[in-house]
Amino acid sequence: MKLDESKKILIVGLGLLGGSYAQSLTRQGYYVTAITRKQSTIDYALEHNMITKGSAFVDPELIKEADIIIFALYPHIFVDWIKQYGSLIQPKTVITDVTGVKQCIVYEIQSMLPQGVEFISAHPMAGKETAGIEYADESIFKNANYIVVPTENNSLDTVELCGDLGETLGFREISVLSPEKHDRMIAFLSQLTHCIAVSLMCACDEPDLERYTGDSFRDLTRIANINDEMWSELFLSNRETLLDEMDKYRESFDKLYNTIKNGDRDEMREMMRLSTARRRKFNKEKK
Amino acid sequence: MKLDESKKILIVGLGLLGGSYAQSLTRQGYYVTAITRKQSTIDYALEHNMITKGSAFVDPELIKEADIIIFALYPHIFVDWIKQYGSLIQPKTVITDVTGVKQCIVYEIQSMLPQGVEFISAHPMAGKETAGIEYADESIFKNANYIVVPTENNSLDTVELCGDLGETLGFREISVLSPEKHDRMIAFLSQLTHCIAVSLMCACDEPDLERYTGDSFRDLTRIANINDEMWSELFLSNRETLLDEMDKYRESFDKLYNTIKNGDRDEMREMMRLSTARRRKFNKEKK
Repeated sequence: MKLDESKKILIVGLGLLGGSYAQSLTRQGYYVTAITRKQSTIDYALEHNMITKGSAFVDPELIKEADIIIFALYPHIFVDWIKQYGSLIQPKTVITDVTGVKQCIVYEIQSMLPQGVEFISAHPMAGKETAGIEYADESIFKNANYIVVPTENNSLDTVELCGDLGETLGFREISVLSPEKHDRMIAFLSQLTHCIAVSLMCACDEPDLERYTGDSFRDLTRIANINDEMWSELFLSNRETLLDEMDKYRESFDKLYNTIKNGDRDEMREMMRLSTARRRKFNKEKK
Repeated sequence: MKLDESKKILIVGLGLLGGSYAQSLTRQGYYVTAITRKQSTIDYALEHNMITKGSAFVDPELIKEADIIIFALYPHIFVDWIKQYGSLIQPKTVITDVTGVKQCIVYEIQSMLPQGVEFISAHPMAGKETAGIEYADESIFKNANYIVVPTENNSLDTVELCGDLGETLGFREISVLSPEKHDRMIAFLSQLTHCIAVSLMCACDEPDLERYTGDSFRDLTRIANINDEMWSELFLSNRETLLDEMDKYRESFDKLYNTIKNGDRDEMREMMRLSTARRRKFNKEKK
């Protein structure tokens, strides 16, 4: 399948991400429909020209007419949905997702789908500290990374289709990773950073800290404003890998701690120079 | 002394911060001079209308004519400078600084100054990950915090003068803290955050991480690009307090670690909600 404007796209779950997908694709001329829990969300999406039509119940017609279905749900809700309604999906439909953990869902979902339906998983590395369609904003995809996460069951053709979707949405860089590599990468780059920010906010209850702070603390703790329902599920869905990355980070933190304790300035500066050299590669401006 | 445009201001050390002070004060009509190590820095500052005159050696005339002297030096260079040249400072001169640690310098410097010279310490919570006058930029003071750090030896009048300087520079909030409270606050809000960012960057040497990252990692590690000469000095100058804050943070990190390890989702979500509630107070937009 090639991605072109003849394709009918159904989005299941109109939250921040689903809404942003809908906004971008409709603006670019695609026929976009939606299934989501609340009628008020459908109303909002229609009013703001984000979808052509939508339903607050699982409408088999919308599923049948779709060429591509994008699931923007919490991991366990996505799995439950496929269990309950997966049989409604027509052969030749391609489904994809936005889920932040992969090993715990990808294989299970691929095994449950009807013959001829292909699930190609993807992780758009974009978001906000807010939830809900009213914060949908396709500009979050600009300059962001998009990871396609195929398994052996996926065809090259569909991997390409999924990458084209990321490109159409405006992502800067499209990569391909296995579910295992994805989960390891995400444990370090995203889950661990959220753990750090939460731990730091919980470590000190001095009042009035905000009157004395600089931008470094503000930037570091931006993600301490966290959706506890979603993130606790993501952490537990990737438990072993996350614990492993937490261990490695703590080792590094302890090493720095000891350089301070022992007044080992050379080793301390060595770590700082390594840190500086590595960090340079992450500047967005570079590209 | 009141801060008005009749006051002659000498800045010692034209780096990023000294340069930004010079830029702001000259633009606002103050008579600003400078002493710094390199003639090329003086030339740059003159060409860019940041100062009226300056010298690359310690010119006693510039020191004598100054009503206010602002030291923008590394802590140990500041102390050495006062040891060597402090006697040149005239009675009734007020001196202040931008140093990031206080207990280890404030009392010593106050004790070394000639009779009639008052040192009122201050910490502008603004900066960049770049060093040098060519990055001077007074806009870094906008929305930032400024802390006046008096001791028992300071007069109320001078505390007020120092606060007026912060206000004139454009800082959003002016606070007053003792050297002890300042160093504790800074250990948590600034030094610990730098420790975390450096540790995180040193914890993983997977290649190509930047291709998969989201903004959370980028924001958290912005300060991992760190001036190792300056920060190793700041860490060691505040060693005991910093180690103590690192201990408390590690305790909090371990607590979160255990909720993940034990699958204790309730406790995990409790920490996330506390984190979210506390983080809200730090939004700049609030004011």
